[in-house]
Amino acid sequence: MYIGIDLGGTNISAGLVDEQGSIVRKGSVPTLADRHYSEIIKDMAQLALKLVKDEGLPVEQIKAIGIGSPGTPDVKKGIIMYANNLRFNNVPMRMEMQKYMDLPVHVENDANCAALAEAVAGVCKGARHSVTITLGTGIGSGIIIDNKIYNGYGCGAGELGHMVICINGEQCTCGRLGCWEAYASATALIRQTKEAALKNPDSMINKLVANNIDKIEGKTAFDAARAGDAVAREVVDTYINYLAEGIVNVINIFKPEVVAIGGGISKQGEYLLAPLRSIVKKRVYDKHGPQTKIEAALLGNDAGIIGAAMLGREMGTEI
Amino acid sequence: MYIGIDLGGTNISAGLVDEQGSIVRKGSVPTLADRHYSEIIKDMAQLALKLVKDEGLPVEQIKAIGIGSPGTPDVKKGIIMYANNLRFNNVPMRMEMQKYMDLPVHVENDANCAALAEAVAGVCKGARHSVTITLGTGIGSGIIIDNKIYNGYGCGAGELGHMVICINGEQCTCGRLGCWEAYASATALIRQTKEAALKNPDSMINKLVANNIDKIEGKTAFDAARAGDAVAREVVDTYINYLAEGIVNVINIFKPEVVAIGGGISKQGEYLLAPLRSIVKKRVYDKHGPQTKIEAALLGNDAGIIGAAMLGREMGTEI
Repeated sequence: MYIGIDLGGTNISAGLVDEQGSIVRKGSVPTLADRHYSEIIKDMAQLALKLVKDEGLPVEQIKAIGIGSPGTPDVKKGIIMYANNLRFNNVPMRMEMQKYMDLPVHVENDANCAALAEAVAGVCKGARHSVTITLGTGIGSGIIIDNKIYNGYGCGAGELGHMVICINGEQCTCGRLGCWEAYASATALIRQTKEAALKNPDSMINKLVANNIDKIEGKTAFDAARAGDAVAREVVDTYINYLAEGIVNVINIFKPEVVAIGGGISKQGEYLLAPLRSIVKKRVYDKHGPQTKIEAALLGNDAGIIGAAMLGREMGTEI
Repeated sequence: MYIGIDLGGTNISAGLVDEQGSIVRKGSVPTLADRHYSEIIKDMAQLALKLVKDEGLPVEQIKAIGIGSPGTPDVKKGIIMYANNLRFNNVPMRMEMQKYMDLPVHVENDANCAALAEAVAGVCKGARHSVTITLGTGIGSGIIIDNKIYNGYGCGAGELGHMVICINGEQCTCGRLGCWEAYASATALIRQTKEAALKNPDSMINKLVANNIDKIEGKTAFDAARAGDAVAREVVDTYINYLAEGIVNVINIFKPEVVAIGGGISKQGEYLLAPLRSIVKKRVYDKHGPQTKIEAALLGNDAGIIGAAMLGREMGTEI
């Protein structure tokens, strides 16, 4: 059995996870992100210990703890070098956790954990190379090569959201102009939907939010488009095209067996995926070899816990 | 000792290469690409046999033959599935070669061979993860992960030149609009230089080619810029910016230890690399971890031979 902890800006979620990547027991507590990291990590450890106790397991039966955190980890040292939204700067995650539990502790980026989860127990299961994209506030991404997380030199790899797809385009939070994330994240879709609503006051988009554009969500344009609204249809088509351009890039670069798409927008299912696949098919460079599948991620909010737990399985218990 | 063969559209080059990646003897013959593939492969084999004979080696001392070819290989089957400029379609490269030499035969894409060569015996030596970019007619690229060529699912990976950096931008030969190759290949630089020359008839660019813009080469804008021409300086600055945008993408995606830049333009040395590094440094996403080095490739035209030969070393002699 492994412990997986998903550290988010709002909640800490943790689970006991078996060898196959199934969650046996889980729980969560608020992060209260303004606190000192030592307080946050203490709560993470206490949540994990509570799960073990509630399950009636001796701690010795836990092989390892994995932590998925926002930001850039140094996986060898077990630290988070930098995480903007938690104001983390060289936080010694492993050392702090081991004050409470004498177990191997693995630290990874949360998007990498989600990708590992999909590869072990989700839609990428069985694929040697896969890429998981999470469409949220930004675009999270994790790259699995040869069944392992690909981290690059010093762990900064896999920032697919910060691939410029439009030189001198939209401002991205990273400082560059035209990143994929500035066009195809949920935040970007909401911005695009608001712009369309303002330009077209009679659109169904406006009706769905009672003319309060601040209520527009990622799904609003999809809801209106499904109901036949032409303005919303154009927002959705344009958005899917942005998403496709980045995915074609990802395929031309990695040629994975599967690209998994997660995050709230992936709940649109075939309404999103069918046109997306159709565009991608026409534009990929290699049309002669076997083709990459594009699928919705399967594990939803559990991916973070499962992937973090599987760090122990993937990496063994050596640190 | 290994044999490496670099199959190009104009010439077939081959070499005897030692375990360290040094060429001991080399030679070349014209490809005469209009012929049937069996004729071309026969010439490849005869060139290789001649080198072995001239070196006074018994064939038994050759461990393996590697072939770097344009196009998309199936490295397991030893075939070239597709190569546009040679009009190859499922060419059984290994089987044909083995008619002449009873040795293991490895087949790879030529840009991947160049990347392997730089990793084994060039500027990426010692780096576990590296990316080699070749700026020529297009942008060739090869990705080395964990000291091996990364091929992806069915060998179509590593087409970095076909990463869109500008949605709805310049037409690319692959059919998409806005690929990196359409902005940062030597062909693109020549197009950009011609456009500037036409708009600015008094530019030194025009003088350097005696007002015959068809004589403009990749180095023309650099030559004029070095001599102080403002129009050429702007062409070069814009080109370096395009190159940088793609390289920042590559770093955000792979975070390799080294990005090597080859092809004729890389001969501009620090005049190209210093401003390139300066832009990249400002724009990469991960500024906290160790930083990727950007260097000129070292092996020039020999990279294809060396990398092809090293396929045998990398992969062992099992096929």
